[in-house]
Amino acid sequence: MDTTGKTITCRAAIAWKEKSPLTIEEVQVEPPKAGEVRIKMGSSGICGSDDHVLTGDLSMKFPLIPGHEGAGIVESVGDGVSSVKPGDKVLTLIIPQCRECDACLHSQGNFCDKQDVLPCSGVMLDGTSRFSCRGQKVYHSFRTSTFTEYTVVPEISVVKIDAAAPMDKVCLFSCCVPTGYGAAVNSAKVTPGSTCVVFGLGGIGSAIVMGCKASGASRIIGVDINEQKFPRARALGVTDCLNPNKLKKPVHEVVMEMTGVGAEFAFEAIGKIETMVSAWNSCNISYGVCLILGVAPEDTQLPLEATKIISGKTMKGVCLGDYKPRDCIPQLVTDYLQDKINIDPLVTHQLPFNQLQKALELYHTGKAVRCVLLF
Amino acid sequence: MDTTGKTITCRAAIAWKEKSPLTIEEVQVEPPKAGEVRIKMGSSGICGSDDHVLTGDLSMKFPLIPGHEGAGIVESVGDGVSSVKPGDKVLTLIIPQCRECDACLHSQGNFCDKQDVLPCSGVMLDGTSRFSCRGQKVYHSFRTSTFTEYTVVPEISVVKIDAAAPMDKVCLFSCCVPTGYGAAVNSAKVTPGSTCVVFGLGGIGSAIVMGCKASGASRIIGVDINEQKFPRARALGVTDCLNPNKLKKPVHEVVMEMTGVGAEFAFEAIGKIETMVSAWNSCNISYGVCLILGVAPEDTQLPLEATKIISGKTMKGVCLGDYKPRDCIPQLVTDYLQDKINIDPLVTHQLPFNQLQKALELYHTGKAVRCVLLF
Repeated sequence: MDTTGKTITCRAAIAWKEKSPLTIEEVQVEPPKAGEVRIKMGSSGICGSDDHVLTGDLSMKFPLIPGHEGAGIVESVGDGVSSVKPGDKVLTLIIPQCRECDACLHSQGNFCDKQDVLPCSGVMLDGTSRFSCRGQKVYHSFRTSTFTEYTVVPEISVVKIDAAAPMDKVCLFSCCVPTGYGAAVNSAKVTPGSTCVVFGLGGIGSAIVMGCKASGASRIIGVDINEQKFPRARALGVTDCLNPNKLKKPVHEVVMEMTGVGAEFAFEAIGKIETMVSAWNSCNISYGVCLILGVAPEDTQLPLEATKIISGKTMKGVCLGDYKPRDCIPQLVTDYLQDKINIDPLVTHQLPFNQLQKALELYHTGKAVRCVLLF
Repeated sequence: MDTTGKTITCRAAIAWKEKSPLTIEEVQVEPPKAGEVRIKMGSSGICGSDDHVLTGDLSMKFPLIPGHEGAGIVESVGDGVSSVKPGDKVLTLIIPQCRECDACLHSQGNFCDKQDVLPCSGVMLDGTSRFSCRGQKVYHSFRTSTFTEYTVVPEISVVKIDAAAPMDKVCLFSCCVPTGYGAAVNSAKVTPGSTCVVFGLGGIGSAIVMGCKASGASRIIGVDINEQKFPRARALGVTDCLNPNKLKKPVHEVVMEMTGVGAEFAFEAIGKIETMVSAWNSCNISYGVCLILGVAPEDTQLPLEATKIISGKTMKGVCLGDYKPRDCIPQLVTDYLQDKINIDPLVTHQLPFNQLQKALELYHTGKAVRCVLLF
């Protein structure tokens, strides 16, 4: 049955308010308007930012459909859409690439002015939502909303990928892989023989570890309070695992003692002020580079020891590995298909969409690196 | 008369304690020990860091002989000194280059482990001083102490320069030029057509402006609370001057309004938390780079708005323009002699050493960019 131009009724996960459980509901998904794309979801990861949405660390409008790390097939497109067509395999993008704004036009920018993360409006570019449930408007999250059988996203938040990419894994190229792996290989440009520290060994942290390893780092120190994650982290390339809760001194002091001089590259993939400061203090004071990937809670401040900044170290925020997403992510997928990047170890679990609660539990307990939801 | 191996009695400026006037005294300067160099000073600049010494913003041991931005002629050398010999024209270096420590051996490091700034011991590498006055030990500042007719410095804090360099100007290549000009051309690598903001329009800030201009920046916004500095700043390349005390809103908001998107490069050359935060907030959120050159007061924290870091901007501390000083500074001097860099506009005043008080007054009132003391 051709659904083009029609409202689709399907199942979606709805967060009715912050800090309350998701429920899977029957929702109505309107057809895409001009410049929009409706996608039949194939798979979706569960990322820390989705959890920030649910816990209230990011201020959002409720009820909403969460999720941003998605892969699917274009079902239909609105007027004027030219970069994708029905039947294309695509990824959703938490940061769009409009190719018109200042950041998109600048060689070093990728935080598109049309992003809907900081802050999140919950609606499409025209100010309205495409979702409803029992007659009530339901908001979008980050203009992606992937915890649903069908979603509508702006064309600028979609990128076509190789049709051969396996649906049950490729959704990680929507966020986790460019964010983590990209931070190491593209933003930091980790050097062979270097020492790296990675704070947080979940999905993003694991992808960072893979990037550090692929770049030839000789020592990769992994930091997490959940020791369940350590065996998998070691398998990915972590050489030393630290649990800050079991150390007798601050973790950055231990890193300094272990390395003598501090790390060349420190990555924060958690989103807490405390671990951002630890990452900064773990860096070598002259040439250390601290990359912040985690999204800190709103209205918080990152306090850095001021006098010591002059010694030369660098702090950089990184979003999607500094890649311009529509330009660069398809190549990462192709690299995967050509065995240049192996992301398979990141997909530790796969569950049908209706087992979302179990998938969230795997996320929260740290049993999964990434649990992919399959539609 | 050959002074080699003998204690030299000469005039030097002594700070007896913090926040008290300097006095010019007769001092004894011992001969250099192994690995040390005694220099007959030819000229010295007065830099903000020297003022930090006198005001107590940096904790120092008193009495001391201030000054670090010096040029002179090697009078004698201690055992084992091979890189300079008596008669060589040299610069003193606030940050040494030992060529043996981790920072010196790393391609991206220049904050030599043997530095004596953070913290300042006040003594030579062997733990003793070469200065005394009326029988009392007098401390070194940063192991340079250039407000004296003769000084003793470690070989690693001295670099030979072209004999043709004019003594009455070249001392600025000891600190001001690599620090400011270098931050723009070497650390930030300011791009043609870019927008830059420079906080502080003294000597370092003026050298930054020159570096931005030389790199082809199309807009250079200069920020200072002393409007006396504005005409000279404009002559060097500043396109817009802002006095934060006369603005109705925070200076970073004005910069955002003026530029629409924020600056590509922001430089802080003052050493105050408030201006460091302003520089950070003046940067474009996606690709802006904030360089901190000023030394913040001890035990202070730089609070950055945490959630917004993720959008991609960079903060970097910069010391001597990231140059490895003994390797790179002689080439900068040669570039000056070959008219590739013109630093002459930075030297607005020259005074004999015994007019130090007047020179300090010129510094404090902002009437001078740099007043060079001549010996």
